[in-house]
Amino acid sequence: MNSGGTTVALDGLGVENGFDVLSEGIRLAAADGIRIRVFGPQAEIDTKGLEGVEVIDTTDQITNEDDPVPSVRSRPDSSIVRAVADVSAGNSEAVVSLGSTGATMAAATFGLKRSRGVKRPALAAQVPLPGRTVLFLDVGANLDVRAQHLVQFAWLGAAFSKSVMGIENPEIGILSVGEEAGKGKEEVVEAHQALEGASEFSFIGNVEGRDVPGAGADVIVTDGFTGNIVLKAMEGTVKTVVGGISDAARKNPLSAAGGLMLKPALGGLRRDLHPDTTGGAILLGLRRTTVVGHGSSGPEGVANAVRLAARSARVDAPGLTEEMLHRVGANRGAVVPDV
Amino acid sequence: MNSGGTTVALDGLGVENGFDVLSEGIRLAAADGIRIRVFGPQAEIDTKGLEGVEVIDTTDQITNEDDPVPSVRSRPDSSIVRAVADVSAGNSEAVVSLGSTGATMAAATFGLKRSRGVKRPALAAQVPLPGRTVLFLDVGANLDVRAQHLVQFAWLGAAFSKSVMGIENPEIGILSVGEEAGKGKEEVVEAHQALEGASEFSFIGNVEGRDVPGAGADVIVTDGFTGNIVLKAMEGTVKTVVGGISDAARKNPLSAAGGLMLKPALGGLRRDLHPDTTGGAILLGLRRTTVVGHGSSGPEGVANAVRLAARSARVDAPGLTEEMLHRVGANRGAVVPDV
Repeated sequence: MNSGGTTVALDGLGVENGFDVLSEGIRLAAADGIRIRVFGPQAEIDTKGLEGVEVIDTTDQITNEDDPVPSVRSRPDSSIVRAVADVSAGNSEAVVSLGSTGATMAAATFGLKRSRGVKRPALAAQVPLPGRTVLFLDVGANLDVRAQHLVQFAWLGAAFSKSVMGIENPEIGILSVGEEAGKGKEEVVEAHQALEGASEFSFIGNVEGRDVPGAGADVIVTDGFTGNIVLKAMEGTVKTVVGGISDAARKNPLSAAGGLMLKPALGGLRRDLHPDTTGGAILLGLRRTTVVGHGSSGPEGVANAVRLAARSARVDAPGLTEEMLHRVGANRGAVVPDV
Repeated sequence: MNSGGTTVALDGLGVENGFDVLSEGIRLAAADGIRIRVFGPQAEIDTKGLEGVEVIDTTDQITNEDDPVPSVRSRPDSSIVRAVADVSAGNSEAVVSLGSTGATMAAATFGLKRSRGVKRPALAAQVPLPGRTVLFLDVGANLDVRAQHLVQFAWLGAAFSKSVMGIENPEIGILSVGEEAGKGKEEVVEAHQALEGASEFSFIGNVEGRDVPGAGADVIVTDGFTGNIVLKAMEGTVKTVVGGISDAARKNPLSAAGGLMLKPALGGLRRDLHPDTTGGAILLGLRRTTVVGHGSSGPEGVANAVRLAARSARVDAPGLTEEMLHRVGANRGAVVPDV
């Protein structure tokens, strides 16, 4: 993954595990040659000896407790608003935050332009699974959607999957309560019809809840309410199962020994399923890359969020996405409605 | 669990693992003293030596491929329609099917009366988790809901939790994308407001996706689209994690030995999380008990579905639910709207 030379604006407030973790994550990403402009407290962030890393002193943090839209509008000196402004001023090519998802979405949506034809940017999570990584969207930017928004999410996901994840002919599924084309809510049935016959990707039709953890498609599309809840339910289920195994392994000396012997192998699985692996979610449909990392990230999670942003900016994923939407829109206006 | 003397009408078609599994399940439930009237092929179902079990010869099965509503209306001799008719005729007190969920819901909704004040019966799954079993509804009966339906689901869940699951003061949560009262779709925010201050249960407000597998409440309420997808996503995640562990354990002799030593302990966890443990989902809001078991059930799953139905009928859960709804409706009409 060569993302050297790209400049990323990093919101330096919001990493729950503290500034040491943030600093270590910056160090890891900088080692790949990524330039980073950090908006956070200079006194706390250790960048000694790092080349291409600059800390712009910033202390105002919009947190999960703040109402995102009014906060973003009224606090131009907050770290997320300054990081986004740095991109729109052309100093950086992509923005990364590990703080409030709502504030990041609001700041990016206001501060960065939407790609032509896109009405609703969507938050896409890369879900790491054994076998393949599933791009799952929307996971929280749009709680209520119409059919045409779901259709756009499919195109946004397909474009990202091709340009950044390197999937030539991505399989796209739409999440519903049954596999048959007629199953689901009205907007889902309608979007399904509109997506049939797309030649730029492989539309596999409806997928069910089990197909998200089962990696039944490269891209799975749903509304932001369902997507957010499903994503968190899956993360919680992994935690419950892994916790249950640990408890089981402690029950008696024999199973404790068994647990110990399994540990290295389980570590691999845990890493496979850990959100840190992919660097978090990405806001699709804007002209510049915006990445929302996990607040609970470790150093590797911080670094992977920065790497993801740099990779997306380097291949100009937003530009490729816009170009693809435009090409398709010109040919088949009904499929990617400009609403 | 004493459910002896109760009579259950069992749809004898739809058990995916065959009639031997069905017959063994019947044997297990009959051993508890439950009377069972089975609507299925007499030649296939082995009830030799069983007391209180009768097979009424029936061969027409409405499957998942059939459109539920027209099929139920046009096929009075199908096993599910006959089983439901047996209840409405007063021969049995509850109906159980392990076949098509859609057909069972349609047959029960047409054939059994709704409880007074209930507009939308809801399908509630008992999700077995370490710590407690969560009652999760709706998991597929109502894809689109209004706030007042969500409020009713909370009351239906609370009544069932009290009367059948024996939870004196159940904790009720409503599923959303954030814990704060204002977070979520309009109907969720509105339902949240209506549920605040209920004295018949402990309303804990919004819960998030992770709180379903985390067992954050006794009853978790959502719409049938989200609920269906979340439930299947959780089942799929358990499968992915358990499959990943098995793969990991096979990787080398040391971890294989570890897996072997952990096996008994893991078996307990697997049983804890296995859908068979609870007997499946229950349709709430009708005057008679309807249980939808898993098509993939083993004998224990079949028996537990019958036991759940018998237990619900024995304590007259539908009657207690109606009584509770009526009492509350009389006092606070706005909270449980009769729409």
